[in-house]
Amino acid sequence: MWGHTALSVLELAGIFVFAISGALTAIQKGFDAVGILVLAEVTALGGGVLRDLVIGATPPAAFQHLGYLLVPLAAAAVAFVAHPVVERLAFTVLLFDAAGLALFCVTGTLIAYAHGLGSVQSAVLGVVTGVGGGLLRDVIARQTPALVRVDTDLYAIPAMAGAAAVALAHHTAIPVPVYAPLAAALIFAFRLTAMLRHWK
Amino acid sequence: MWGHTALSVLELAGIFVFAISGALTAIQKGFDAVGILVLAEVTALGGGVLRDLVIGATPPAAFQHLGYLLVPLAAAAVAFVAHPVVERLAFTVLLFDAAGLALFCVTGTLIAYAHGLGSVQSAVLGVVTGVGGGLLRDVIARQTPALVRVDTDLYAIPAMAGAAAVALAHHTAIPVPVYAPLAAALIFAFRLTAMLRHWK
Amino acid sequence: MWGHTALSVLELAGIFVFAISGALTAIQKGFDAVGILVLAEVTALGGGVLRDLVIGATPPAAFQHLGYLLVPLAAAAVAFVAHPVVERLAFTVLLFDAAGLALFCVTGTLIAYAHGLGSVQSAVLGVVTGVGGGLLRDVIARQTPALVRVDTDLYAIPAMAGAAAVALAHHTAIPVPVYAPLAAALIFAFRLTAMLRHWK
Repeated sequence: MWGHTALSVLELAGIFVFAISGALTAIQKGFDAVGILVLAEVTALGGGVLRDLVIGATPPAAFQHLGYLLVPLAAAAVAFVAHPVVERLAFTVLLFDAAGLALFCVTGTLIAYAHGLGSVQSAVLGVVTGVGGGLLRDVIARQTPALVRVDTDLYAIPAMAGAAAVALAHHTAIPVPVYAPLAAALIFAFRLTAMLRHWK
Repeated sequence: MWGHTALSVLELAGIFVFAISGALTAIQKGFDAVGILVLAEVTALGGGVLRDLVIGATPPAAFQHLGYLLVPLAAAAVAFVAHPVVERLAFTVLLFDAAGLALFCVTGTLIAYAHGLGSVQSAVLGVVTGVGGGLLRDVIARQTPALVRVDTDLYAIPAMAGAAAVALAHHTAIPVPVYAPLAAALIFAFRLTAMLRHWK
Repeated sequence: MWGHTALSVLELAGIFVFAISGALTAIQKGFDAVGILVLAEVTALGGGVLRDLVIGATPPAAFQHLGYLLVPLAAAAVAFVAHPVVERLAFTVLLFDAAGLALFCVTGTLIAYAHGLGSVQSAVLGVVTGVGGGLLRDVIARQTPALVRVDTDLYAIPAMAGAAAVALAHHTAIPVPVYAPLAAALIFAFRLTAMLRHWK
């Protein structure tokens, strides 16, 4: 069984933590309440919207189910009220962020493939889904994108490895419900190790 | 009567003043003539193009009727030639900008709703239509987006209030020609008061 | 004969040099390997992706033929390994960049026209195709876009002149295989002269 409910819960959890990271960035930059909300929404939904525009799936998922818009709103409120607590939970946030990256990247690759893209192109779009929101966050917040900085731990590389694994698995007889969670686990474990060992 | 002509005139007026704000930003930043034109076009048309890409209405309106591309060109020329005058008219420009915001936000919400989006999603896309161009202007001009700065008077909040009013009215029997102008007037009055009282 | 193969080779050459310019920017900014790859891909493909999203041709060409994604990867590798050599070849790179600009701008205008856009709108979208990737490169690399800076030699103006020539030619009996190369040659020669004479 694919476990659609479990997937949706995980996806909303990923959206939540991406939104938290956007909201915290806005707070650090001294933005106002609107800025916190904008950065929460853009960080959480930007990657998926880019993916859906590229594959021509309009309106994007973010504009179809209300949860996609409301979860970042809730995350912005949590970050606004409780950011000293949230910042102390920095590692927990990074853990969830790694889970969000893993999930977005794998589902993004699968969705692109289901829309007829080639397997390499699907993998690239999966990575875009995973890292696009954070890139837009950094552009709006006027900071050098974490994605391209030398001093940040590996982020895109684990995403690329996992998306490549999914792309390879497309050509095998392994069923999606087997390789998709494995690829997500690969991204999560790789990213976690990169964080703990400070791989650059 | 919906008054299509009046609406078109208002819309082109909104495009014109948004373009003026883009052109003035380019002049303040010391950009060249191309920069003035680029920033005028992006500020005036960016929000609507984003909206049309999200709802899948391609090519976007901005690429369908020539007026959409030519009005920002005219605004750029006016700003280039007469910017000392235009800058002395700063308050007048802000007045028109508030009118443009009101109009873009309400029509954006209505267009999204007509394309089958939910009412909350339509309101969000209406706000994106109203504030998107200014956000792109600030990103290209490398300044902290006015949208997220603490020291700017309320801008997105009036837009959100008006878009929410439209979204609520969708669920009533009130006809569009009644509530649309009222919602636009609400945004305009709210934004004007925020400017005059320096509500942050 | 349209010479599809020659056109494809030229297009991939244009993508290659645009990617080189993105990769060199990333290296100058001290970005990591991921940053070099991201900037190479975005610079090379960004303009065409914007064009395809606007005309509703999804998935964009960049996600249809593998060469589009792989050529910037190769360019990033070349720039990474050999950037001191590439930088000494700065003028050669600029030569190819001018060729890429000419080609992207003319093919962008033709593709937009073939998708039913008006001739002025097609010309505008052709210019967007030519300059869009460089604009995105500069936004991500956090530098004032070369497109709008006063101290850069003319770049958008030659593109506009060539796209306008194509738009005008649409209304004549001159066949595409005649005017398209002429318009590309016009952009190339105009841009080259602007560089050599430092026209601002």
